[in-house]
Amino acid sequence: MGHAFWIAADWGTSHLRVWRMEGHAVTAEARSAQGMGRLAPGAFEPALLDLIGPWLEGAGRAQVLACGMVGARQGWVEAAYVATPAPPGDPAAAVPAPARDPRIEVRILPGLCQQDPPDVMRGEETQIAGLLLEEPSFAGLVCLPGTHSKWVRVASGRVEAFQTFMTGELFALLSGQSVLRHSMPGQSWNDAAFAAGFAAARSDPAALARSLFAIRAAGLLRDVPPGAARARLSGLLIGAEFAAMGGEALSGAVAVIGAGGIAEIYRDAFRLAGVEPQIIAAENATLRGLCAAHDALERTTS
Amino acid sequence: MGHAFWIAADWGTSHLRVWRMEGHAVTAEARSAQGMGRLAPGAFEPALLDLIGPWLEGAGRAQVLACGMVGARQGWVEAAYVATPAPPGDPAAAVPAPARDPRIEVRILPGLCQQDPPDVMRGEETQIAGLLLEEPSFAGLVCLPGTHSKWVRVASGRVEAFQTFMTGELFALLSGQSVLRHSMPGQSWNDAAFAAGFAAARSDPAALARSLFAIRAAGLLRDVPPGAARARLSGLLIGAEFAAMGGEALSGAVAVIGAGGIAEIYRDAFRLAGVEPQIIAAENATLRGLCAAHDALERTTS
Repeated sequence: MGHAFWIAADWGTSHLRVWRMEGHAVTAEARSAQGMGRLAPGAFEPALLDLIGPWLEGAGRAQVLACGMVGARQGWVEAAYVATPAPPGDPAAAVPAPARDPRIEVRILPGLCQQDPPDVMRGEETQIAGLLLEEPSFAGLVCLPGTHSKWVRVASGRVEAFQTFMTGELFALLSGQSVLRHSMPGQSWNDAAFAAGFAAARSDPAALARSLFAIRAAGLLRDVPPGAARARLSGLLIGAEFAAMGGEALSGAVAVIGAGGIAEIYRDAFRLAGVEPQIIAAENATLRGLCAAHDALERTTS
Repeated sequence: MGHAFWIAADWGTSHLRVWRMEGHAVTAEARSAQGMGRLAPGAFEPALLDLIGPWLEGAGRAQVLACGMVGARQGWVEAAYVATPAPPGDPAAAVPAPARDPRIEVRILPGLCQQDPPDVMRGEETQIAGLLLEEPSFAGLVCLPGTHSKWVRVASGRVEAFQTFMTGELFALLSGQSVLRHSMPGQSWNDAAFAAGFAAARSDPAALARSLFAIRAAGLLRDVPPGAARARLSGLLIGAEFAAMGGEALSGAVAVIGAGGIAEIYRDAFRLAGVEPQIIAAENATLRGLCAAHDALERTTS
């Protein structure tokens, strides 16, 4: 069995990414913008076949294992959340998705939920499973920055608790659509301004609400380069995350799972807070997590 | 002179409102959506004449006194900010706007600025001048809720200091465009949910960053009526204002200057904080402030 052909799929709100696998080895990959957010109920299978069709010729029946928003209520089939504390990416909870094409057998991994305070994740749990495949005894904090940043407490191979911040979405709305957009055209950046905003919000959580409009006012009253305004906004938002997490952010091991630029910004933030985090590429974590789930499914079904 | 004809204008980013005045008495009024935000430099005079043209027949030369964003850098003519501490709506700082029509003489009142922390206002200073026309000895806090809510410390007829929060704009972006929009369709409301959100953010400023996504998660995990989600978001944002202002919000006299619905929400918030505020209709305050400035201009020019 070990090196049988299967397909891994990372299927989020705005993207679909697939890998052709032999065991843990990638033999081909493809992606599209056919994310869950733009697909009607009947459109999931065609969107998947668009990418993996060429891989199915003469291959027999292919196992497809997917994670992410594809398992949401508005997705292909709902994969009900598993309640924390729980191991992330538990393949026993994977849900079969109805497919008409006899060449594929699709399973969708569920996300995790927490009742109090209420919180949910879909996709990040698989990235954490990827981290645990490499480091089964990891105990500490996993930070997954993004549109909705997750801070996850992991111990004994389980997700103990987690907390979501709308940092990426707030940054996009404020920098792109609010009055602050006038103060930060372009994509430039200023490390010192990031550090100052981060320090202000981290030391005083009330600074977030109080300091947003000041970015605009400062630009009207004196020259503030766009990169400084932009980085200050990011610093304020990320500083507010650190303030809300309190000392927890700084105790024990810290891993940041994220894509290039955003992972670097959070690495800088942790360093400003006196912590050197381990950085893990998001895509790699997702793929490793899907591998871990596939291995477990193979063990139970073979 | 006392009852001579003049024209008062409240000219914001998204609206233009004019009153035909005889002294302090309104004899006609008109409005349009020709706000500063949609007007090119040469379009201000025509937009004004569209509304007041019928009032100018055989009336001699009309004084027009305007406040608001019309005096911004992108407005008709820039009326440079007056630095605080300063009396609000100082007519001596009014700036003549260039007009081709000989029947009008236009002056624009400047806004106020504060250097540290950086902050600006345009329009609200005139509303505060209106409050002071009625109550010259008012000393306390003036709260002007809106897209950008202002909290203003007033004493001895002057604005001592102020603080802007992007509460209205954040609420619009989060309720209308973020992932939270799925949890709050429609316009319903729930007082208890508002109070709970307000209390959470007021007692712990970090709650704002931490609790936004929980509105969405709670809606996914259990039934939360849209009105409860919507009111909770409002409560969190307004509670964050109170947290940032600290005890200052609760000491001494408090006046809320705002339009109907939003003034009521802030009145409820102040009551939850144990303060009974005076409520002043925004439109009335603006008009009274323009009357005060007009009176002062008449005194200096006659």
